[in-house]
Amino acid sequence: MQAKPDQLCVVLVAPRNPLNIGAAARAMSNFGFLHLRVVNPYAVAFREARSAVGASALLANAQEYQSLADAIADCTLVVGTTAVRHRELLHPLKRLEQGARVIRKHLGSGRVALVFGTEKFGLATKDLSHCHWLMRIPTREEHISMNLGQAVAVCLYELRRDSKAAPQTEKLKRATAGEVERISEVLLEALRASGYVNPRAEALTEDKVRRLVRRLDLQAADAELWLGMLRQLLWKIRSGGK
Amino acid sequence: MQAKPDQLCVVLVAPRNPLNIGAAARAMSNFGFLHLRVVNPYAVAFREARSAVGASALLANAQEYQSLADAIADCTLVVGTTAVRHRELLHPLKRLEQGARVIRKHLGSGRVALVFGTEKFGLATKDLSHCHWLMRIPTREEHISMNLGQAVAVCLYELRRDSKAAPQTEKLKRATAGEVERISEVLLEALRASGYVNPRAEALTEDKVRRLVRRLDLQAADAELWLGMLRQLLWKIRSGGK
Repeated sequence: MQAKPDQLCVVLVAPRNPLNIGAAARAMSNFGFLHLRVVNPYAVAFREARSAVGASALLANAQEYQSLADAIADCTLVVGTTAVRHRELLHPLKRLEQGARVIRKHLGSGRVALVFGTEKFGLATKDLSHCHWLMRIPTREEHISMNLGQAVAVCLYELRRDSKAAPQTEKLKRATAGEVERISEVLLEALRASGYVNPRAEALTEDKVRRLVRRLDLQAADAELWLGMLRQLLWKIRSGGK
Repeated sequence: MQAKPDQLCVVLVAPRNPLNIGAAARAMSNFGFLHLRVVNPYAVAFREARSAVGASALLANAQEYQSLADAIADCTLVVGTTAVRHRELLHPLKRLEQGARVIRKHLGSGRVALVFGTEKFGLATKDLSHCHWLMRIPTREEHISMNLGQAVAVCLYELRRDSKAAPQTEKLKRATAGEVERISEVLLEALRASGYVNPRAEALTEDKVRRLVRRLDLQAADAELWLGMLRQLLWKIRSGGK
């Protein structure tokens, strides 16, 4: 983890849909940001979200405020999220990729509020005036506006994202050259026994089959299976030929 | 855009919740991936998602299949998504950051299927056997499993993400040094007129105020406002002193 996730608050302003509140909380839990603040929520929605089956401790601990100013009073950086690009005229606007970098840096030294507006209209102008700058998710022009829960998930993922994450492909054990060669040999033997190989072109065919088998790029466990199957085929061909 | 988004299909296997199907479609539209394939959906859910208010053309054009094998038949790379880490023993597993890089590369040359399992259980072992490798979103150990719509959103965002996105902060026009100096002068004049400045420390105070004003790092429009306000104060001080 690059920064202190404990220093970030997600602030939902006037959310109206309990499913969205629940979804935001779930994404926060997924990515390890546990401080939710809710400003002036639609009371029924907030109650419903909190009492939903599987509602998290995170949601139970969410703090409720009457105004955005109260909700962010202890924060040293306040970032609003927006889908509306023409607001860039009133506020500095950063793409998520850049904005997250600035937020991560700031999380080392102060508390950051990441503010999301209502589902339908986003943040009101008055709310925006509390923000140091705005951040937008790089959606396409034809469909800019994201679902609230999904926007929260994408922003928090970007904050958690590790650009230097070591290639964590848990590599499966590959077959050794010896194992691959045994497969090639049994296959060739089977091909010869089956009459596939033209004796005059035998060397050529051998090379071709060797390359073919190597291109399979087999895993060790698979190599064993292949060897077993081919041996069986060879045995059958030979015993049938008797 | 780094790759051809048209070459990617999002495949939902047996989704059961119409809201999730709708959310997946919305995120696809947000990030410009327009090909949705649905395998063996819970019929009522699929019908409901398609007929929902605001359901997109994307959803109307979604193709339905009886099996995952049919849905991915024309794809040259099939990537399964999973939250379950121990499956890494059966399949190569890449973190989203790495996996997306591989997918982007592949999208230049062939069609890629990005496969999501059912809400509750993810992809079944049989489905996984159709995948070249698996991808996981880097959620925290204590809460690994994501909501389907949010998982789709995060994966597609990562595919669209531009690590080289130029710092797109639409910078507001800053005040020029001349404008800043005019503010400093009017402020100083007002301070002098108000008796704030000790004549014996005038040079020192001037420097202090100059630095103070420059630290404001004013925007051009704000500088004009400040200048107007200070001029008004100065005028008032002078006229009151008469």
